Amino acid sequence: MAEIDPEDILRLDADRVLLLDQRLLPDDEVLVECRTAAEVANAIRTMVVRGAPAIGIAAAYGYALAAQRGDDLDDAFRVLADARPTAANLVWALREMRDDPTPERARALHAEEVARCKRMAAHAAGLLAPGTRALTHCNAGGLATGGYGSAVGALRAAFERDLLVHVWVDETRPLLQGSRLTAWELEKLDIPHAVITDSAAASVMQAGEVDCVVTGADRIAANGDTANKIGTYSLAVLAHHHAIPLFVVAPTSTLDPNAATGGDIPIEHRDAAEITTRFAARNPAFDVTPAALITAIVTEEGVHRPPYEASLPSPARAAS
Amino acid sequence: MAEIDPEDILRLDADRVLLLDQRLLPDDEVLVECRTAAEVANAIRTMVVRGAPAIGIAAAYGYALAAQRGDDLDDAFRVLADARPTAANLVWALREMRDDPTPERARALHAEEVARCKRMAAHAAGLLAPGTRALTHCNAGGLATGGYGSAVGALRAAFERDLLVHVWVDETRPLLQGSRLTAWELEKLDIPHAVITDSAAASVMQAGEVDCVVTGADRIAANGDTANKIGTYSLAVLAHHHAIPLFVVAPTSTLDPNAATGGDIPIEHRDAAEITTRFAARNPAFDVTPAALITAIVTEEGVHRPPYEASLPSPARAAS
Repeated sequence: MAEIDPEDILRLDADRVLLLDQRLLPDDEVLVECRTAAEVANAIRTMVVRGAPAIGIAAAYGYALAAQRGDDLDDAFRVLADARPTAANLVWALREMRDDPTPERARALHAEEVARCKRMAAHAAGLLAPGTRALTHCNAGGLATGGYGSAVGALRAAFERDLLVHVWVDETRPLLQGSRLTAWELEKLDIPHAVITDSAAASVMQAGEVDCVVTGADRIAANGDTANKIGTYSLAVLAHHHAIPLFVVAPTSTLDPNAATGGDIPIEHRDAAEITTRFAARNPAFDVTPAALITAIVTEEGVHRPPYEASLPSPARAAS
Repeated sequence: MAEIDPEDILRLDADRVLLLDQRLLPDDEVLVECRTAAEVANAIRTMVVRGAPAIGIAAAYGYALAAQRGDDLDDAFRVLADARPTAANLVWALREMRDDPTPERARALHAEEVARCKRMAAHAAGLLAPGTRALTHCNAGGLATGGYGSAVGALRAAFERDLLVHVWVDETRPLLQGSRLTAWELEKLDIPHAVITDSAAASVMQAGEVDCVVTGADRIAANGDTANKIGTYSLAVLAHHHAIPLFVVAPTSTLDPNAATGGDIPIEHRDAAEITTRFAARNPAFDVTPAALITAIVTEEGVHRPPYEASLPSPARAAS
């Protein structure tokens, strides 16, 4: 199986952060160079890098850059934390960096995030039966997590164990992370797949061709309510209607114990122009899936079942 | 309120059919000229004209053209009937034309379709309470029906009666009939609206901002199972989960008494390139919503409630 090198997705060089421009995939593989925390924040805001764990890592690199340059670290914290509102990992990573704002620490956070993905993927693969046809949404792959993948990581691990035979890839409007990024990763990994429009997921379920839905998460509240890419809640309702399990796979850096429920999670609304430049539009980037519709949440610590208040672990503390 | 002239959408001139190229809307308003039944069939297949009632009218015009030219009418019937498989109106209109393949008859069919839309819109508007925020999918408007609209006609009628305050417009991937065509019509009609991605419909419902879902139909089986644009079944499940009524508004020319259930309705699969040119994809153009998820089906004959086997009328017979 082909690999995706974490360093090819994002890395900290001597005095710059290099980010693979995910907006240009799958057509072009271009690295964007950021020399300040503000430039990293801008790259996060404009989605050069996206995916909750990946933007946490990028923010850690940006913060280390600011420390190296002798920039004001409170400013760096603020500008990076404000880049996008929904992902819990962003603020989590910045808090982890505050005590030791060094390149080594940022690189360790990156390596830990990849290691967490591999652990959670192994846990999640155990939930899948042989012959599984999974459906996934957006991109919770190596690109989103700095190297291996949460939901896609689970699919990789299942495929390696001969449990997975097919992946339905929601194209994921408006930015098409599914048909641009997840399909690109699955192709590199030689995992059989087909892209569908988001609105065709119900019809594929109705036809009995989906055994489970596997997604990542951007923020998970203490009760298990989960914010993820817009359309995840739709899939959760559809999966429930068709008695198909929904597994959320995400590192504990995604957990937000300060959010009691999904109602405490800020939802980013993005420019209507991502949908149409001609007419009025509403463009929420995320939705919240109630815990009751989630069969299990998988982290690097294991498989967590309802009630999630009791079963979810605490967020990871980075080794330092 | 602005009007959309049926003749601007499609019409039969002396020796040609003129079709507004719906693929180019909303940016350009261009008429495509067809001089043979085969050219009309090609325009239907490539979706210059789309929408079940509109392709029925276009086929009638194409058949009249063939008769005027002295072409083989069995050939014309076949090439037109085969242009797209799912819409019932296509074969219905051709059968209506067989006895009297004249331009006058085709124009009468067109006028009757518009009149049917106005009648069903009046019936459907009666189902909406004041202050309604409706959600619609694809385009079941004037463009789809030759001038007035089925689902959008219902919204027009409700808006004229001060019952409708807002329309959520599903963009409707892959061909964006919602964000290109329905939004264009609603703008012309001064009806407040906002485009959303198809996968955001669930989240708008979850927020309590949708009072009903109103769609058209491409073919309705005897038991009420309804084929319509891919994504309609998804909306039906979501509406059911949120206890939101789903109204299907369609002329009786859409009814197919030869289809006992949705299982008898052929579903067109279109080119994967409509979704992605880079990866494998599956692209069903329609899905089937089980009758059990449909609150009411509205035709020009009135409002039909379950059980639909008993309540649905017979397909319209054209006046001749």
